[in-house]
Amino acid sequence: MDASAAEEEVGNMAENTDTMPGFYIGEHLPAPGGAVTSDLLAKAANDKYNMISVYVSNLSYQRKVEAIIVEAQKNGRAKVYVPGLEAEDVNMHPDENINSGKVIGVISSWIQLDSTDPIISSASRQVLHHEIGYAGFCGMMSLLVQGPSDCEQNLAAYYQAIVQGLSINAYLQISIMIPAYGPSLEPSQGGTEADSQGLEPIALYDELSSWDIWNGIRTATRYSPRISLALQIQYSIPNKHTQSRWFAEPVRYLILDSQAYVLNAKGFPVMTKHHQNLIQKFSRKSPLYLLANTRHAEYTPEPENPLDVDFPPLGSLAPKGARQASTTNRRRDDPQSYRTYLHHLLEDLPPPPPLDIFGAGYQDFLQSPLQPLADNLESMTYEVFEKDPVKYDQYEKAVKLALEDLKNQGIEDICVAVVGAGRGPLVTRCIRAATNASLDIQIFAIEKNPNAYVHLMKMNRDVWDGRVTLVKTDMRKWKPPSYIHILVSELLGSFADNELSPECLDGVQRVLHPTVGISIPQSYTAHYTPIMAPKLHGDLLSRAGSTPDVYEVPYVVMLTAIDFLSLDSDGQVNIEQAWEFKHPAEDLEHDGGFNDHNQRESFCIFPVPRRGVIHGIAGYFESVLYKNETSIVELSTRPDTIDAKSKDMISWFAIYFPLKTPMPVSDRAEVQVSFWRITDGRKVWYDWMVETFAFIPDPKTSLALMSTDSSAGVIPLNKRVLVATSEIHSSKKNGCLM
Amino acid sequence: MDASAAEEEVGNMAENTDTMPGFYIGEHLPAPGGAVTSDLLAKAANDKYNMISVYVSNLSYQRKVEAIIVEAQKNGRAKVYVPGLEAEDVNMHPDENINSGKVIGVISSWIQLDSTDPIISSASRQVLHHEIGYAGFCGMMSLLVQGPSDCEQNLAAYYQAIVQGLSINAYLQISIMIPAYGPSLEPSQGGTEADSQGLEPIALYDELSSWDIWNGIRTATRYSPRISLALQIQYSIPNKHTQSRWFAEPVRYLILDSQAYVLNAKGFPVMTKHHQNLIQKFSRKSPLYLLANTRHAEYTPEPENPLDVDFPPLGSLAPKGARQASTTNRRRDDPQSYRTYLHHLLEDLPPPPPLDIFGAGYQDFLQSPLQPLADNLESMTYEVFEKDPVKYDQYEKAVKLALEDLKNQGIEDICVAVVGAGRGPLVTRCIRAATNASLDIQIFAIEKNPNAYVHLMKMNRDVWDGRVTLVKTDMRKWKPPSYIHILVSELLGSFADNELSPECLDGVQRVLHPTVGISIPQSYTAHYTPIMAPKLHGDLLSRAGSTPDVYEVPYVVMLTAIDFLSLDSDGQVNIEQAWEFKHPAEDLEHDGGFNDHNQRESFCIFPVPRRGVIHGIAGYFESVLYKNETSIVELSTRPDTIDAKSKDMISWFAIYFPLKTPMPVSDRAEVQVSFWRITDGRKVWYDWMVETFAFIPDPKTSLALMSTDSSAGVIPLNKRVLVATSEIHSSKKNGCLM
Repeated sequence: MDASAAEEEVGNMAENTDTMPGFYIGEHLPAPGGAVTSDLLAKAANDKYNMISVYVSNLSYQRKVEAIIVEAQKNGRAKVYVPGLEAEDVNMHPDENINSGKVIGVISSWIQLDSTDPIISSASRQVLHHEIGYAGFCGMMSLLVQGPSDCEQNLAAYYQAIVQGLSINAYLQISIMIPAYGPSLEPSQGGTEADSQGLEPIALYDELSSWDIWNGIRTATRYSPRISLALQIQYSIPNKHTQSRWFAEPVRYLILDSQAYVLNAKGFPVMTKHHQNLIQKFSRKSPLYLLANTRHAEYTPEPENPLDVDFPPLGSLAPKGARQASTTNRRRDDPQSYRTYLHHLLEDLPPPPPLDIFGAGYQDFLQSPLQPLADNLESMTYEVFEKDPVKYDQYEKAVKLALEDLKNQGIEDICVAVVGAGRGPLVTRCIRAATNASLDIQIFAIEKNPNAYVHLMKMNRDVWDGRVTLVKTDMRKWKPPSYIHILVSELLGSFADNELSPECLDGVQRVLHPTVGISIPQSYTAHYTPIMAPKLHGDLLSRAGSTPDVYEVPYVVMLTAIDFLSLDSDGQVNIEQAWEFKHPAEDLEHDGGFNDHNQRESFCIFPVPRRGVIHGIAGYFESVLYKNETSIVELSTRPDTIDAKSKDMISWFAIYFPLKTPMPVSDRAEVQVSFWRITDGRKVWYDWMVETFAFIPDPKTSLALMSTDSSAGVIPLNKRVLVATSEIHSSKKNGCLM
Repeated sequence: MDASAAEEEVGNMAENTDTMPGFYIGEHLPAPGGAVTSDLLAKAANDKYNMISVYVSNLSYQRKVEAIIVEAQKNGRAKVYVPGLEAEDVNMHPDENINSGKVIGVISSWIQLDSTDPIISSASRQVLHHEIGYAGFCGMMSLLVQGPSDCEQNLAAYYQAIVQGLSINAYLQISIMIPAYGPSLEPSQGGTEADSQGLEPIALYDELSSWDIWNGIRTATRYSPRISLALQIQYSIPNKHTQSRWFAEPVRYLILDSQAYVLNAKGFPVMTKHHQNLIQKFSRKSPLYLLANTRHAEYTPEPENPLDVDFPPLGSLAPKGARQASTTNRRRDDPQSYRTYLHHLLEDLPPPPPLDIFGAGYQDFLQSPLQPLADNLESMTYEVFEKDPVKYDQYEKAVKLALEDLKNQGIEDICVAVVGAGRGPLVTRCIRAATNASLDIQIFAIEKNPNAYVHLMKMNRDVWDGRVTLVKTDMRKWKPPSYIHILVSELLGSFADNELSPECLDGVQRVLHPTVGISIPQSYTAHYTPIMAPKLHGDLLSRAGSTPDVYEVPYVVMLTAIDFLSLDSDGQVNIEQAWEFKHPAEDLEHDGGFNDHNQRESFCIFPVPRRGVIHGIAGYFESVLYKNETSIVELSTRPDTIDAKSKDMISWFAIYFPLKTPMPVSDRAEVQVSFWRITDGRKVWYDWMVETFAFIPDPKTSLALMSTDSSAGVIPLNKRVLVATSEIHSSKKNGCLM
């Protein structure tokens, strides 16, 4: 990809969601004193870099600020006033020959916004705001800011500086540089990707301490879409659980330090398999920018220039030994070899899974249940749905099994009806199933949509040889000439019953043969689990001002940037079943006309091993299309069972029930989720709520344990306390009319 | 008070806020089978009861519901349908001779809304909803519902039943009956009011377990103003910290069980001093209803009637031994003696403190900072403010001290100026101070409000003998004939600097004598502490729909129904100083015209011994009016220092900085509050945020402690973890214009 093509692609990235995610590779930090010139950009393009990142200001500015601080400290003043940038302090000027979209500004790394020294933090904040203002003036779109050093500093001062910084320029994207691996640990010499299966408390805490810092920034900036992450990748990388956590967050940059590489036998830099997997995982993010941080002096005119050193941090004003530039010792891991490896790696990434291709552009896109996905997609991808490689195959298998079972029971003149036949795909499959079962059946197709009915007539004439009896009516009013033996329907929504399949099938149940009648599907179940979904929460937050009910409806969504919070002891996601519907319904005649027998409620407790934030509840479904003593044909959208039951099925996205207020949970916590499916005979809706529990040491037990000199060495956290209760959320106002 | 007067008072209770809070005494639970008749009400009135409470339904209904459940269980059905009430099932009918405002409905006590058995909880919910519907139909305004039994049951099902119940009738008040003392403890035989100073963890948890249940209900019902508490008082009553917690909640009823009394030497029921104090504390709530629960058979026609027994709970369908009615054994603690004691007790309560009388009607009333309290009160209570017994006395003392100090320095021709003189109270005090100091001074009164200026002219003619030089101008434009030695002002707001006292005094500082000039006040400081304030949060929540910025401004408010969360080891409230302003300002000339020198920031850590919910931050101020080497004259609104510094001062209420989302905190937690006073040279505003921290066991330390066989017996919770971060709230949009 040449530079101008890359530029165009960057410009279009927001719209380009139906293409494969691209990579935008940049060169990070040429040198603190390097000024941006068109020559520099041409050189980068020649090196196949799409962009470069440079410090907004240079060492001259740092020296001025240091002098001001020293003077203020000498005079015992409590306040310090940092003047704005001057011409000699900056690395860039507005220049029509420089495409500012290809330059990422880097805020001075020597500032310490979170210092507990008020003079340092105040001066740092002023520097940040001056640099943001100037970068915006130069036309930059994206800035990198170093994250807080650790949780012990003054995080509130850091948050405040960033929030105020956001208001200086209405367009700038600010990305916070945070190490993917916890900040409080020295990079270990051995590989650390091995999963901490044993849930050792210390490792656990450190593993998420970087995320804690980010979580605070995200919350304090109110999930602003202009705040994102620049994740620093070094040799130590987080385990798979922490990688999942980061994947749920708005990672815009991966900054690949040269320490992230190892040298192969020939002395060239390569990545470990773990690093390659991490990059592959994050390549699903769009847009994703990779920044190579292979600090060297190639672009600086004079290697011995004093500007070409690391900035010493503001807090330690004592002079530090300047880092030696490495240009004099050109090794095989020079910048060119990193670039070559990275391009090679990206070209060799395996293709994404089918659902990623099919769902491109739908990742984390919240669809109102009033405009279901099927409606939106009908014009462009109706064909794709009908060609779902799995769903209709499963239906055909189920119908064939049911036909054979009826035949074995001696039933003759079998009648099959497809209710809600649409464009007829199930009819085709029923005919094929009968043919394969060597049975001659009578088949009805019921459809009330007059447009679809026209198409069914055409299908009957051209494809089905007139074998199908077409009826244009609402299924609840249909009067067949005789009882139906098999009633086939596809009325399921993302949460199984949310598009009123139970109520629709109740209405047509009277046509089913009272003793041997079969409904396909025979039963279906709704399933759910609490998730962290900061992107979805941010989207709803931005809509909440104009749409007050935004948290009171579920959404159909292709969940992508999420993290499952409830895991079992094997680290697998823990999803619980809410309830089940069976057809034909047994208790239909007991109902007083209020649809009471279709009410459901569910209360499930979810263990949460690692702390996080609950933004909402993910919902899925499973359905038994047909089951007899030897065989079972199922559908599933549950991520943990779809591969076993209906691998590669693409017809349904998940459903998402949001929480108005995100709920933090602690390590080794429990979450109770309560769900209700409610009906008043006219509408059907859901209510949901969440309670969080923590475990604390029970002094009585611990004391006993101590006195018996237990060798376990583990503090028992066995007292369960209620921490917080959400509101009861209700979709009553936006319930489905029966 | 006779019955009709009481009735009128009950009717007017909402408006009657400027009178003393009254007591409304009712008789609780005559008997489950007692029907409401006009005779019964007349009898209650004759007994000096203002109201009675009765069960909505009777034993007949319970038996029907039980039969339905038994049948459903026998048939293995998963669902149960409870029919509505029939004529023989109810204790009341609409009757024009019965004032339904004097009858409080009690929901069947045998239902178990929080049962983990879905049949029981479903049947209970249906009973609740039938009874709410019928009670509303009969014109009742208030219902009592038994609270959940404990946290181990299905609380979500309980919450849901109540939330749905609220929507059945738009006016009914629902009060949840909850024991004031934790539900999981047997009532102890000894007194338990003694404060648990030692913070024993077990006692701590149990002490708040009742509150936990209520906190969940309040949250799940979204702080509905139609949900309140009926607090059950028995012999064991909570310690003072838990009483404070309950006082912050919407307690509408105190249900005084006969077990709350002890028998005195003569065999008559009396209350312990602790119980009396509790009732006195809650008598500040308005309205407050006391319900005497002296279960007896006086009102039932036949003592041996089988309806006159406790309802056995629904979950235990095995027959229970019916409780013996005590009518055959008439002792001196008969109902009459309880009544007599209660009336006697209420008549003897001590009068409320001055601020309660002065502030009647202002308790927890949130005043927008754009309409400060002084403006609202001007017409009706301006006189009261000027007669504040403390504030102007303190000013007079301060001026006298300052005059004497100047005199001792040999200053002659002393000039005093009152800037912002208003109606002149400070001028009067300055003259009096000079007289008492035997000094002849020149005095100026500066006022820009032309109406107040007219009054100042009148004062000068009639009271001050023309001794005062009046100047009608903005103080920032005043040009005095010579330097001023003492500049007196009263520009402080509830958070000291929030009405821009610093900026106003900066503008007039140039008139002050450069070496000996004195400002009164000399300095002031802002103070704050995190509080629980469910009433304030509920009020803001109800306004948030129409006013989106409702959480982004501070409010002036007479804080009443609040609980201080941060206490020191002596159980005293922990309030921290935010910042200080001194006059004359030292760094005025360093300011670049942007008012930067009046920016402030503050970060304080508050220990929170007992779990709770942070709804916002309470703010106060202190001011040093004048201080020399031997004396100091101060003002304070801090509840912990006001008595020492300016006892009974009434001129200022507190300030309240709300949080958009209430933040739960755990036992033995820490809360960091961050405050910023920000200015851009045109406006001044505040930003604030809260972070919560918990302490968990550090496995390393605990392990070491265990192996050394420590005898401490305490689990060290020494690892501090960040739990949650609030948004940064900002009043920038509604900041004060300079």
